[in-house]
Amino acid sequence: MSEVAAQPLSAAAFASFGEVIETPGAVHYPINDGRCIRHHALAQVETLGADASALISIFVSQPVRLPYALSLVERHPLGSQAFMPLQDDPFLVIVAPDEGGAPGAPLAFLAAPGQGVNYRPGVWHGVLTPLAREGRFLVVDRGGAGANLEEFRYAAPWTVTG
Amino acid sequence: MSEVAAQPLSAAAFASFGEVIETPGAVHYPINDGRCIRHHALAQVETLGADASALISIFVSQPVRLPYALSLVERHPLGSQAFMPLQDDPFLVIVAPDEGGAPGAPLAFLAAPGQGVNYRPGVWHGVLTPLAREGRFLVVDRGGAGANLEEFRYAAPWTVTG
Repeated sequence: MSEVAAQPLSAAAFASFGEVIETPGAVHYPINDGRCIRHHALAQVETLGADASALISIFVSQPVRLPYALSLVERHPLGSQAFMPLQDDPFLVIVAPDEGGAPGAPLAFLAAPGQGVNYRPGVWHGVLTPLAREGRFLVVDRGGAGANLEEFRYAAPWTVTG
Repeated sequence: MSEVAAQPLSAAAFASFGEVIETPGAVHYPINDGRCIRHHALAQVETLGADASALISIFVSQPVRLPYALSLVERHPLGSQAFMPLQDDPFLVIVAPDEGGAPGAPLAFLAAPGQGVNYRPGVWHGVLTPLAREGRFLVVDRGGAGANLEEFRYAAPWTVTG
């Protein structure tokens, strides 16, 4: 069984898959007479195809433990999908590069408290994997007609370690 | 000075201004082999005008105390604006009906921990007013060209009580 070691989540390491939603390093400016700081445009919501719109949902996911056995990844060809934790808990982020329509070897990242992610359209990714306890996530993704889900199951599972 | 008593935030009371982002009462279904519940489409992101897109930002706001003196409200004619707290803290939500292009008497709501709001395009609202401590909010609103901010200052301030 092949192993994948999770690395810390950073904007640079994640850049080819999407955006890290976090305040450090972001463009920011004061609003509301200086009482509020806007950390601006941390992620772009993308919705492709006719009659598409962006939706806000909440996902509540059971936690996983490391080492984590990864078999299934998925992608959404018609829209981005953002996940922001509603508690200050870490979670595991798994992505894979596309290699001719199928995912290659996965990469794993440990999102620190305060970090979320936005997957660009078509980026292979694992399902939600909070680590500490049941996780609540605000999700921004695409609604509308069209086939926006592809799933892929690896022939042999990967073991993701912390 | 006129007083406004804040009432509990509920989907029914808020319906003419936008959506309450919360899981109770939402359409929900299992995903990820039953390990996750999707509370679906709690709010609709709206972006009007050409070359518009939806953005994800984080606002970090200083808190206010009740009673709160309200002078300024604003609205965004070209897009919805959603605020979801990233801590389980209450915050004050202030809106006003439009009366011929200017806001009428304001209404105030107390958002309980776990509740967020999405203002529909053109809805007059107060600035961010967390109550407990400095508040971090995930914000989903519109980016792009066009005049998307109108501000209005009441001739006499309103006193919002808890």
